[in-house]
Amino acid sequence: MKRKIVAVIGGRRCNSKVEQTALEVGRIVAKVGAILVCGGLSGVMQAACKGASTCKNSLTIGILPGDDKEVGNPFVDITIPTGMGLARNILVVKTADIVIAIDGEYGTLSEIAIALQSNKPVLGIGTWDIKGVRKIGSLKNLERILLKFLKEK
Amino acid sequence: MKRKIVAVIGGRRCNSKVEQTALEVGRIVAKVGAILVCGGLSGVMQAACKGASTCKNSLTIGILPGDDKEVGNPFVDITIPTGMGLARNILVVKTADIVIAIDGEYGTLSEIAIALQSNKPVLGIGTWDIKGVRKIGSLKNLERILLKFLKEK
Amino acid sequence: MKRKIVAVIGGRRCNSKVEQTALEVGRIVAKVGAILVCGGLSGVMQAACKGASTCKNSLTIGILPGDDKEVGNPFVDITIPTGMGLARNILVVKTADIVIAIDGEYGTLSEIAIALQSNKPVLGIGTWDIKGVRKIGSLKNLERILLKFLKEK
Amino acid sequence: MKRKIVAVIGGRRCNSKVEQTALEVGRIVAKVGAILVCGGLSGVMQAACKGASTCKNSLTIGILPGDDKEVGNPFVDITIPTGMGLARNILVVKTADIVIAIDGEYGTLSEIAIALQSNKPVLGIGTWDIKGVRKIGSLKNLERILLKFLKEK
Repeated sequence: MKRKIVAVIGGRRCNSKVEQTALEVGRIVAKVGAILVCGGLSGVMQAACKGASTCKNSLTIGILPGDDKEVGNPFVDITIPTGMGLARNILVVKTADIVIAIDGEYGTLSEIAIALQSNKPVLGIGTWDIKGVRKIGSLKNLERILLKFLKEK
Repeated sequence: MKRKIVAVIGGRRCNSKVEQTALEVGRIVAKVGAILVCGGLSGVMQAACKGASTCKNSLTIGILPGDDKEVGNPFVDITIPTGMGLARNILVVKTADIVIAIDGEYGTLSEIAIALQSNKPVLGIGTWDIKGVRKIGSLKNLERILLKFLKEK
Repeated sequence: MKRKIVAVIGGRRCNSKVEQTALEVGRIVAKVGAILVCGGLSGVMQAACKGASTCKNSLTIGILPGDDKEVGNPFVDITIPTGMGLARNILVVKTADIVIAIDGEYGTLSEIAIALQSNKPVLGIGTWDIKGVRKIGSLKNLERILLKFLKEK
Repeated sequence: MKRKIVAVIGGRRCNSKVEQTALEVGRIVAKVGAILVCGGLSGVMQAACKGASTCKNSLTIGILPGDDKEVGNPFVDITIPTGMGLARNILVVKTADIVIAIDGEYGTLSEIAIALQSNKPVLGIGTWDIKGVRKIGSLKNLERILLKFLKEK
């Protein structure tokens, strides 16, 4: 059976508390056996990939806006340099079975909207308050929720 | 001098009141001399193009998600069939100097987010309440506001 | 009836003889009443737009790889800044009813291939020798050929 | 160190001899330790993925034109459903460090052109005869050539 894919989306700049959250989310994504896909840059994306990389058999995909593979953060295993700018946001979302949004600004909002338009489940952690996003108050239950969602897909 | 371009975004399904609004917005866009760009389909998009078409020298561009030019609404003058699905939303926004959002669902939300991320002014009429969107309560002042924004660009 | 659209494709660098050809091709496209679409940059693209601009009621569209409208050549009437890099080549081709390739390197080759894959007629002037491209030896007959093709579409 | 990525491009329909070649090419790509990326569909793409799947630790990525993950061939490990039609060809090429073209029609030609435009090495097996493509006469030496190219990148 194919491994499920979870997108972690969020800004390329974030404070250390958000970074800590993203690190833990990435670790949980890898722990439940899913592949992690993200925008491949810094901030939330880097922290999530770093968190995943602490688990055995983790796999991370970074879908970059630019053409240069070297721009991807060092914890990305597979780099996809699209050269398509904002259109890469769509690819991140479409690649995923579930989307986890952490913090973030307008770029993250566009990805949340694309995910909801594409009928993908969106879990939100301290992010935009949009109808359809399932708010996750604490990371304690994330592993359980993720496993449940991944089984349903 | 190049003609300014105004995007009108909104759902492909809408009620008759929203349609009436879109029709009037399209007319005003054309009246102030701007080119109207939209997603080229039905609902708000078709009504806006129809409204524009009632003005002399109007010009409307429809950027379609699919490959088939014939799917564009009959009031589109120039059809761009992208075959790129949701990525066409980005093109609609990037083509415009100003974005007017009317009503709409998740697709419209993604376009609002992309516009704000790209630092384009967004005027909102009965649409998503997002920080950065300038709410327009009545169409009475739209012509004046539009002229002011277009002069500043 | 909607105006037909003709794409003129070719390199952003060209010698003065090719430039002269592109200028004349652009003029003919506008003369037969078609809208000219191109990649919006310099070289063949700029010369074709300039040629078109010498005709009354001409209309030129430049679909740019980058995000910056100002990069478009001065003879483009409608600028579409895609920010999608090479993917803009696909948009140029898809927007057109007929493609005219002049000179050009690998970028032009990719556009020829996309056009043929999309079943668009491709006229070639001193360009890649690919099965399916109709070679035009002299510009004398281009107006007649173009009118014939546009009527068939 | 990141694993290198090799694209295998070619038509979605092919005869059994070409299929045999693609199968063997896919096997060699996996054997040298590279990740295989392709368009994810049938024909050359499926055969290459199948060939790769016979090796331990192989990994295959299928970048689909459509939205539906289920359309990918059964030997794809990671499916990226772009919904961007022909623009997915660009993504296949950009993801790769080296491109191997087998047989193919206009779609393959566009990918060869995009690869050469992007300065990626292109190895050709019974495919379009384009300046810049390195023709591979026999698969005997492919493993050695591939290892050499991958080391240089």
